[in-house]
Amino acid sequence: MPTYPSRVTVYEVGPRDGLQNEARHVPVEDRVRYIEMLADAGLPFVEAGAFVSPKAVPQMAGSDEVLAALHRKESVRYPVLVPNERGMERALAAGASDVAVFTAASESFTRANINATIAESIENFRPVARLAQQHNIPVRGYVSTALGCPYEGYVAPEAVVRVASALVELGVWQVSIGDTIGVGTPAGVEAVLSALVSEIPADMIAVHFHDTRGTALANVLTSLQMAITTVDSSSAGLGGCPYAPGASGNLATEDLLYMLHGMNIDTGVSIEKVAEASFFITGALGRRPESKFLQAFAAGARQADAAH
Amino acid sequence: MPTYPSRVTVYEVGPRDGLQNEARHVPVEDRVRYIEMLADAGLPFVEAGAFVSPKAVPQMAGSDEVLAALHRKESVRYPVLVPNERGMERALAAGASDVAVFTAASESFTRANINATIAESIENFRPVARLAQQHNIPVRGYVSTALGCPYEGYVAPEAVVRVASALVELGVWQVSIGDTIGVGTPAGVEAVLSALVSEIPADMIAVHFHDTRGTALANVLTSLQMAITTVDSSSAGLGGCPYAPGASGNLATEDLLYMLHGMNIDTGVSIEKVAEASFFITGALGRRPESKFLQAFAAGARQADAAH
Repeated sequence: MPTYPSRVTVYEVGPRDGLQNEARHVPVEDRVRYIEMLADAGLPFVEAGAFVSPKAVPQMAGSDEVLAALHRKESVRYPVLVPNERGMERALAAGASDVAVFTAASESFTRANINATIAESIENFRPVARLAQQHNIPVRGYVSTALGCPYEGYVAPEAVVRVASALVELGVWQVSIGDTIGVGTPAGVEAVLSALVSEIPADMIAVHFHDTRGTALANVLTSLQMAITTVDSSSAGLGGCPYAPGASGNLATEDLLYMLHGMNIDTGVSIEKVAEASFFITGALGRRPESKFLQAFAAGARQADAAH
Repeated sequence: MPTYPSRVTVYEVGPRDGLQNEARHVPVEDRVRYIEMLADAGLPFVEAGAFVSPKAVPQMAGSDEVLAALHRKESVRYPVLVPNERGMERALAAGASDVAVFTAASESFTRANINATIAESIENFRPVARLAQQHNIPVRGYVSTALGCPYEGYVAPEAVVRVASALVELGVWQVSIGDTIGVGTPAGVEAVLSALVSEIPADMIAVHFHDTRGTALANVLTSLQMAITTVDSSSAGLGGCPYAPGASGNLATEDLLYMLHGMNIDTGVSIEKVAEASFFITGALGRRPESKFLQAFAAGARQADAAH
């Protein structure tokens, strides 16, 4: 039988990737409270905002105010997304100590999403990486559409390796491999991760799955079997699927934690406290959580112990 | 890396296990049409009804009429559930050619569910098995609460093995191991299946997962890695969770098919035709499908090819 890591790092993206795809805009005060609740739950990474155009992504406006108001814990890192040098300068001015950059494995997607080729997007990160190095700030890199593209369909694992390797050469400490439209299955995950680990150490790779077709946890399981130990997720499953409004998007943090804890894999995170944060933010958004765990909880399911 | 079977048998339980847990009662005519649509989709097993008390389970009343009206395909088997000798006699009179019996691995659950001990429930099946043998009718056995019990919590794998072995001794051709309340994780599945396959050949074991906490497909993946090749599912995820109204229950057939097909595992089933059956029956029930695949489909998601 396959073996599993004894500990997994859960990288929380709800306050950024989650909220930026929600229709309702959450005020700074509630975003701060949400981030602090997630940090109090024991999550080691809570992505806190984005220094992108407030016209393009109004949900992330005021990310500087969020960072200013936040009571940061020493044990937690609060990365913010920066698209380019200008964004990096704003993030630095706001006191960011962790940043992330974002590109994709599919040319059509990158063109539609940021109006650039993949190569151009990497070039845009060069001054970001330079500033980050000067200020001793770790940079994470996202590679989206790694398991399929809404325009091109199939994405070759070699394309994912090429982009991820370019990010690593730029100096990112971790690449997050994203199934942006939630089409991946364990076979695709195995193909992409097999190709990646031949070029990049497994401990520099994170996985970021969407549960649009219900395969996210199966994809996590396959990733764990391939020695990946960092998994992205979004509390309450916030974010939905930008390419199919009404469908599920980000893997919910509670669902991930339920599976990991049931497998005796340590995360250091309290599922109950994450659930509190999720109920708080879905209240602010006026919507129900996408998380199956929270839906069962809200329906009054007895949390009987799983057999292990 | 783990290996997977090249072919998996999908055992459809929507018209029985699904419908019997839905609040709205579907008339015989629509149940017949639903079953025929599922059979036309290529599903090799479509559980068609139950010969239980119509007072206790009004949703299954008229199962004799369903069998009488059904245009059966040679390539498809249409099992019906029978709780005891009386039910078996009614099933035989109605022309059933495949039956299933139902017990559990937890004493508290069996007591609450059928007001009997596990041993008594097995004794009840003895005359059923005798009649089945006389009429050359295959019997399937369900073992529910195999991954956890709503009353007792943890269920020991040895208890599951004991009940499954008793059913095999009675002559069932297959045991379906059920996570009735959807609490299982891959660790629990591995523990239970490891214990089972030391006593019962893997090709006599089916798995029946509920997606109440989102783990069903991860649990399927683990089962496939342990050489299990029959998986139960319910079109549209019909059935819900009887122990948490509003929460998800049965793994949806479409979600299962999406993952299997994405892994190049053959099922012989058309996901599009199952989806048609699911939209037909959820229309009759006046509810939306629980299947994530169908929710994505309904939301207009492009069915981009998964990378494989």
